[in-house]
Amino acid sequence: MRLTKMTDYSLRLLMYIASKEPGELCSIAEVSKAQKLSEAHLMKITHQLSLAGWLETVRGKGGGIRLGKPANKIKIGDVVMSMESDFDIVECFSGSVSCQFSKSCKLAGVVDDALSGFLSHLNKYTLADII
Amino acid sequence: MRLTKMTDYSLRLLMYIASKEPGELCSIAEVSKAQKLSEAHLMKITHQLSLAGWLETVRGKGGGIRLGKPANKIKIGDVVMSMESDFDIVECFSGSVSCQFSKSCKLAGVVDDALSGFLSHLNKYTLADII
Repeated sequence: MRLTKMTDYSLRLLMYIASKEPGELCSIAEVSKAQKLSEAHLMKITHQLSLAGWLETVRGKGGGIRLGKPANKIKIGDVVMSMESDFDIVECFSGSVSCQFSKSCKLAGVVDDALSGFLSHLNKYTLADII
Repeated sequence: MRLTKMTDYSLRLLMYIASKEPGELCSIAEVSKAQKLSEAHLMKITHQLSLAGWLETVRGKGGGIRLGKPANKIKIGDVVMSMESDFDIVECFSGSVSCQFSKSCKLAGVVDDALSGFLSHLNKYTLADII
């Protein structure tokens, strides 16, 4: 059971930027070098994080990226929920009908509650708490 | 974020067997047909579940598999912990040193606590509760 690389790298990108002075801009090249993550991955992640409001991009000469809101307003669980593309922890979450128990069993509900608890725990912490 | 197919299929195999009369034997071929899972997968899973004590195999003519203990003594979280090979939810769980925050950051601890909560929630339920 693991988060996708996209989610993992998103957290690392946000943590890197949160460790800067508030409002300070940094380049994707800088994060790439410091965190040993490919620029292509980081550009894709930056785009998604910007759409979600976690990052702000400033274009042009002297531009770069910075947090879209203060680090103490960015909850870890919200970032994970926003970036994780796949929460089908068990196959039947995806609507698989190969399992003969799909209509009667309570596994999906139990796992769904456990997942909600997992994300709620992460949401007790902000980016500012973990860096 | 999803469980491995091995864990998912393990739960489905155990649920199938738990839906039988207590002590009743069934064959891997029967489970394979009913649950549309390959016999090769099921044989591998049966071996692991037997080692962990969740299943009992009876050899010879008229043999088969049955639960190794009553369904109300088999906790879902324990099965998941026993069968899931990969709990490296974030890369740094695996001892990755590419992240520059690996020594100072608190993300791993927060995620580890969330994972413990996830498994504790699953352990509130037994196989008997979900079928």
